[in-house]
Amino acid sequence: MSDIDRRYAERLMEQAGLDALVIFQPEAFRYAVGAPAGVATMWGRAGAAIALVPADAATGLAAIASDHAAGSIRKAAADVDLRTHRGWIDMLDLTGAESVEQINEAYRRLGSFGPRPETFDRSVCFGLLGDLLNERGLDRARIGADLEFMPAADFEALKLALPTVTWTDGSDALRRLRAIKSPREIERLRRAAKAAEAGLVRMAGAVKPGAQLTELSCAWKAGAQAAAAEGGFGLSGHWDFISVGADLSDMSAVVTPGALIKADVGTLVDGYSSDGARTFTHGRASPLSREIFKALENAFATGLDELRPGNTFGAVHAAMLASMRKDGFAEYDRGHFGHSVGGSIGIEEWPFFSAGNREIIQPSMVVALETPFYGQGIGALMIEDQFLIAETGAECMNRLPRTLRDLSAD
Amino acid sequence: MSDIDRRYAERLMEQAGLDALVIFQPEAFRYAVGAPAGVATMWGRAGAAIALVPADAATGLAAIASDHAAGSIRKAAADVDLRTHRGWIDMLDLTGAESVEQINEAYRRLGSFGPRPETFDRSVCFGLLGDLLNERGLDRARIGADLEFMPAADFEALKLALPTVTWTDGSDALRRLRAIKSPREIERLRRAAKAAEAGLVRMAGAVKPGAQLTELSCAWKAGAQAAAAEGGFGLSGHWDFISVGADLSDMSAVVTPGALIKADVGTLVDGYSSDGARTFTHGRASPLSREIFKALENAFATGLDELRPGNTFGAVHAAMLASMRKDGFAEYDRGHFGHSVGGSIGIEEWPFFSAGNREIIQPSMVVALETPFYGQGIGALMIEDQFLIAETGAECMNRLPRTLRDLSAD
Repeated sequence: MSDIDRRYAERLMEQAGLDALVIFQPEAFRYAVGAPAGVATMWGRAGAAIALVPADAATGLAAIASDHAAGSIRKAAADVDLRTHRGWIDMLDLTGAESVEQINEAYRRLGSFGPRPETFDRSVCFGLLGDLLNERGLDRARIGADLEFMPAADFEALKLALPTVTWTDGSDALRRLRAIKSPREIERLRRAAKAAEAGLVRMAGAVKPGAQLTELSCAWKAGAQAAAAEGGFGLSGHWDFISVGADLSDMSAVVTPGALIKADVGTLVDGYSSDGARTFTHGRASPLSREIFKALENAFATGLDELRPGNTFGAVHAAMLASMRKDGFAEYDRGHFGHSVGGSIGIEEWPFFSAGNREIIQPSMVVALETPFYGQGIGALMIEDQFLIAETGAECMNRLPRTLRDLSAD
Repeated sequence: MSDIDRRYAERLMEQAGLDALVIFQPEAFRYAVGAPAGVATMWGRAGAAIALVPADAATGLAAIASDHAAGSIRKAAADVDLRTHRGWIDMLDLTGAESVEQINEAYRRLGSFGPRPETFDRSVCFGLLGDLLNERGLDRARIGADLEFMPAADFEALKLALPTVTWTDGSDALRRLRAIKSPREIERLRRAAKAAEAGLVRMAGAVKPGAQLTELSCAWKAGAQAAAAEGGFGLSGHWDFISVGADLSDMSAVVTPGALIKADVGTLVDGYSSDGARTFTHGRASPLSREIFKALENAFATGLDELRPGNTFGAVHAAMLASMRKDGFAEYDRGHFGHSVGGSIGIEEWPFFSAGNREIIQPSMVVALETPFYGQGIGALMIEDQFLIAETGAECMNRLPRTLRDLSAD
């Protein structure tokens, strides 16, 4: 099942003057088709997996993938017109075979092919794309490819292979499309946020004087994984940026009384990453740390007041920066105070809460709002929560209080 | 410290008619500079981190990175001429600060800048690259960029920003350079292989009737991590493709008597991934499975006989395919029987043991040789080991016997 809103895609393509989007990035393929692009995409090259999204919402999606990935794609997305190319992996259905001769027969029933390619044959993939475009009457169309992903070497080959198409950059349309989440995407991000937060609770329980940064990281992971198991879902990945104490680069740091402990963490559910952060101490933080945190709390609350449909991303940034300045941080700066979250390659997705950004906050976006402060010699402090933009406002996906929590008081 | 052999790089660039390589891919940046490229590369875009490798081995390396990444780069690679651009993260040295006013003063001492960009400013990065090329007399040179990584949208911008350079694809030279490993790279791959194999030993201990695939995966990970900790090194990542039983896509499979258990696994040390595989059963495998495995053992031994400096990668593939055919697998095919390993984006690196491949096996390459067999309805069987190519032959980095091991007999 695709996560694309085809009507919205049609509108975006109309605005951009595109007849179709052709998608090469594996993460965007998974989004478009609703199934993983397969191991043939591991080299970051374009062609092993391709999704075709026609502008006309009444026509179906099509895809190209390796024969190795085809089974799981057909299972997850039966309605997608799938064409396959032969990858390097030899794999077939041998159910019932009891002898080598029966194995050979199973191969022969598949028909005769040339030898398998070293990895995948890009020219074959582009040829299959050409067939699809011909069948759909798109062979002389204006088509957007994701040129912010597609390697320049592969794009040159694509233009040579399919020269009648007017190729253009479809990255902007794709980015806008992906910023609005489907109910399934929202649910993945909700689960991911929940698991990550359960990890923070477990981590907080492990904080005591002498505890090592790596122990806190392990506790976080264990808590997140346990919550996922309890919730009946798996984690497709996880990441954590934890700092302990005044030296931000000291990965062997241990907890000391009053030292800042910042945990910026996320888990992935079906490739969708949460993003959230909290700051703790064990013992009372220094007066300066408390003063910084108070300013961050104010900035966060100010940003949250601006986080509503119809407002701009830039307005949120302006309000938060102004709050920091009002609280005395005359020189504090920050390129963005948060961003969209989703299933893209980086943790942070476009759009960003950045200076002067006129992009409009819209319902069904999922965003992370953050107020980080990194001071070598003091430590890191941060508040970050994840929000679903609803019709009327912002619904928080996190529950932990946004305070600078002294765990010795628990 | 760079992992580049500058003399070899000079020869390769001379052959390719290049005056320099300019590297944008984060993994290749880390290889060239000897330090991570930084979080500003998370979006897969080109420009946030750039390495300049002049062909002339007598001139130094240069790099461009965000101010956030600069500290760790300067520490790890003091001899690299590093230029920095401002990323979105506000971070500075506040050692000794005890008041907000002192924090503001610390900012002011850094000098005056415009506001920070949303993520990073590509045009600033390309401008810094232009400065470097001017200073080195390379502004009208023929320069190879890694166009098999660089997004087409970014390459277009690069050509506009620095139009006097003759830009060409340097991917082939970079690939050849990276295929020959430095002693440090070899040590990373040795450690990674060791940890992964320790994981297989731990996993084998967890195999019993009723054991779940996910339990085997956890046991593998725990064993690998324990071995790394014992060896005094950390793992920067890990991956495992484990199958249990006849249904290759059944992730909830449990061990049954005689069912095939295939574990294709790797750990990462400083971004360098090992690759290795073993096949187990608990109870005697079926006669057909044993016959298949016997053929794989023969093919592996045959390939190993051909694995020596001076031979071609294609000769290894030809010998292994011929061995399978000789053992009755008349239709068996496989795009490659292994590949180089290293610190690239995919697990499998160029060159490959593929049909007709005339690339020469050379000393200081590290490769994985593999004989996989995937039969839905039967299960997966695989042997894979990692080898350092020495002056006189292939030195195996693994120790476990390459048999189809019945763990009920242990």
